[in-house]
Amino acid sequence: MRRAVALAARGLGSTSPNPVVGCVVLDPRGEIAGEGYHHEAGGPHAEVHALRAAGEQARGGTALVTLEPCNHTGRTGPCSRALLDAGIARVVYAVADPDPGAAGGATTLAAAGVEVEQGLLADEAEAGNLAWLTSVRRGRPFVRWKYAATLDGRSAAADGSSRWITSAESRADVHRLRAEADAVVVGSGTARADDPHLAARTSGARTLQPLRVVVDTGATAVAPGARILDAAAPTLIAVADDAVTGHLDGLAPVLRLPRAENGRGLSITALLDALHERGVRSVLLEGGPVLAGAFLTAGAVDQVVGYLAPALLGSGPAALADAGIGTIGRALRLEVTDLVRLGPDLRITAVPIAPAPEEN
Amino acid sequence: MRRAVALAARGLGSTSPNPVVGCVVLDPRGEIAGEGYHHEAGGPHAEVHALRAAGEQARGGTALVTLEPCNHTGRTGPCSRALLDAGIARVVYAVADPDPGAAGGATTLAAAGVEVEQGLLADEAEAGNLAWLTSVRRGRPFVRWKYAATLDGRSAAADGSSRWITSAESRADVHRLRAEADAVVVGSGTARADDPHLAARTSGARTLQPLRVVVDTGATAVAPGARILDAAAPTLIAVADDAVTGHLDGLAPVLRLPRAENGRGLSITALLDALHERGVRSVLLEGGPVLAGAFLTAGAVDQVVGYLAPALLGSGPAALADAGIGTIGRALRLEVTDLVRLGPDLRITAVPIAPAPEEN
Ligand SMILES: NC(=O)c1ccc[n+]([C@@H]2O[C@H](COP(=O)([O-])OP(=O)(O)OC[C@H]3O[C@@H](n4cnc5c(N)ncnc54)[C@H](OP(=O)(O)O)[C@@H]3O)[C@@H](O)[C@H]2O)c1
Ligand SMILES: NC(=O)c1ccc[n+]([C@@H]2O[C@H](COP(=O)([O-])OP(=O)(O)OC[C@H]3O[C@@H](n4cnc5c(N)ncnc54)[C@H](OP(=O)(O)O)[C@@H]3O)[C@@H](O)[C@H]2O)c1
Repeated sequence: MRRAVALAARGLGSTSPNPVVGCVVLDPRGEIAGEGYHHEAGGPHAEVHALRAAGEQARGGTALVTLEPCNHTGRTGPCSRALLDAGIARVVYAVADPDPGAAGGATTLAAAGVEVEQGLLADEAEAGNLAWLTSVRRGRPFVRWKYAATLDGRSAAADGSSRWITSAESRADVHRLRAEADAVVVGSGTARADDPHLAARTSGARTLQPLRVVVDTGATAVAPGARILDAAAPTLIAVADDAVTGHLDGLAPVLRLPRAENGRGLSITALLDALHERGVRSVLLEGGPVLAGAFLTAGAVDQVVGYLAPALLGSGPAALADAGIGTIGRALRLEVTDLVRLGPDLRITAVPIAPAPEEN
Repeated sequence: MRRAVALAARGLGSTSPNPVVGCVVLDPRGEIAGEGYHHEAGGPHAEVHALRAAGEQARGGTALVTLEPCNHTGRTGPCSRALLDAGIARVVYAVADPDPGAAGGATTLAAAGVEVEQGLLADEAEAGNLAWLTSVRRGRPFVRWKYAATLDGRSAAADGSSRWITSAESRADVHRLRAEADAVVVGSGTARADDPHLAARTSGARTLQPLRVVVDTGATAVAPGARILDAAAPTLIAVADDAVTGHLDGLAPVLRLPRAENGRGLSITALLDALHERGVRSVLLEGGPVLAGAFLTAGAVDQVVGYLAPALLGSGPAALADAGIGTIGRALRLEVTDLVRLGPDLRITAVPIAPAPEEN
């Protein structure tokens, strides 16, 4: 199963709106007969890859899968059917499928006389599929907020300069996060200040570029010639219903959204719903501080990844602006799930402890 | 030698103005014959303790010492003499004594025919004596700046509340730092806002309390009844030459200092000189953000210990205020020397990479 979890991870960034899945098929003697993972949406599922590789050796064997085999006839036919056809005698899966449209595979298999077992390495498999599982459970994309800051929490110096707070190692790691995400989101402030590119630096041809999204209420932050408008990756400019967008015609598609109820910018809920509808299951929120505050206030951050540079500034904008928290008792408490040293920097990964309050 | 370094650490907080020193004496067959460490200033040195414990077994044996044996006749007579008198044949020490008044012990021993060796576990021994070695090399107390903050670098919420940002584990660790320090320093802002106590919670009777120091230019922050004026530990109020201090008569000694050249508060250099003169070799600077900025600007921070709570606030005062840094290229870069998880929190220990600029 550990091998299956590792196989699954190879699909990160290219399977949305599907989960990442890995599968190992053992022959009746317990030897590995075939391996597979889900490469990309529309392509064969992990089980199908693994069964093909195993061929006749699968008959009477065991399939180890990171996620409950699907039961629905999508673009590729149900995996429960494929496993039965191949004569698999035993199926072990790590995590149950929370998607009501796909679940039931385990029941189908058991009803057909296959020995079915659940839970092996469930935590690892769950962590590997965190984005997809969260998106199914919450009905919106998984949101990972990434920030870079000094030890005193500044994301830029007093004069606005921020290149570079963190090390080359940390910046390379951010490119990995971009490649894993379906969409990268920034606010109009960041678009204006940094003219960011936001594409993932591709290491191999297989890297699927994320959708680059600018949240730009008045459609004033992205001008023709902005780096984000190049051909390296698709781009979407989210604007208010009544924004004037003629200057973007032919340069980037525009997404019209209602304004936030508090009057500040666009509705984060509407933005995430619209992205979800377009197949986006994971969002990398790259800031800036104001937009991150709005996401946190809306209870729309599922994971925080902070790159902390061992440096002090003493002035300059903070990594996070107003998130509607006025007193220490209402601080948003997180749990550190991972702590890594990246060159001179630290990378802290954390998740909110209590479900954050919903936007009102 | 590892044992000697561990023994030395037992003296932390009670040996100033002397270093911490540990010593292990082996008999001629290499068996441990005696151990000792320097307990407190004025008391016998580590070598003397260890030699006494070893008695006649020391003759022809080896002494392992964390610091070069002293050569001067202080309150206790030179250790080089004691080692010769005990008939020690070989002396291994980790770190050379940088104090010109005490050095030369190795030369004396070698001239008397003792086999002398230097450098074993030098890094560990050096780290164990960091405060004392720094104070000798810089001619002023070692300064450790401690702060507590959220992941977004806030040391309090917007309404000023800060109890508690960090966990009980972190707060207990701060009491350990206080017990290790000769003096704990805060600014008038912290004294006014928090009415802090600043004594070390004593775990054993041996804990020596640090000197509590408030840097209070106008002598207006500490009023009769302030917790810092109780009998738990000595207290010193640092004020300007011309401050009116009648209300403190009989409550706490007052230290008169010149003002800083930039006109903001007292001269940090003069403060550290005055503390050094009183035997203070290590200072725990507990803030707040403004005073920490002044210490950093003066190049007077030797180590930073940050307690980071996995929490977000989005508003509230930053952990560090103006340190004279306006652009990212001038950020004060540090090197992380230790990273520990304390309950839910992280403790980051770091040291400035380049010698910080001196106050001008
Ligand atoms: N260190 C890092 O990790 C990092 C990352 C990113 C950026 N930055 C820095 O952050 C700075 C820019 O930050 P920023 O905070 O000014 O800009 P920002 O967060 O990128 O954008 C804020 C803007 O987004 C728009 N917006 C749309 N919907 C919103 C909503 N619901 N709530 C709030 N805002 C909404 C608002 O402007 P409109 O309503 O006019 O559209 C708002 O002013 C730059 O200096 C950049 O270098 C640092
Ligand atoms: N989370 C933490 O780790 C932590 C630690 C400590 C405090 N705090 C919080 O910090 C807040 C208080 O911080 P603060 O920054 O206002 O006060 P502060 O740093 O404690 O004190 C600043 C004051 O020190 C005096 N001072 C004397 N010499 C100075 C010099 N050379 N340079 C600068 N100042 C000098 C100045 O006032 P005068 O000239 O009038 O004397 C100055 O206003 C409180 O809310 C407290 O809870 C947090």
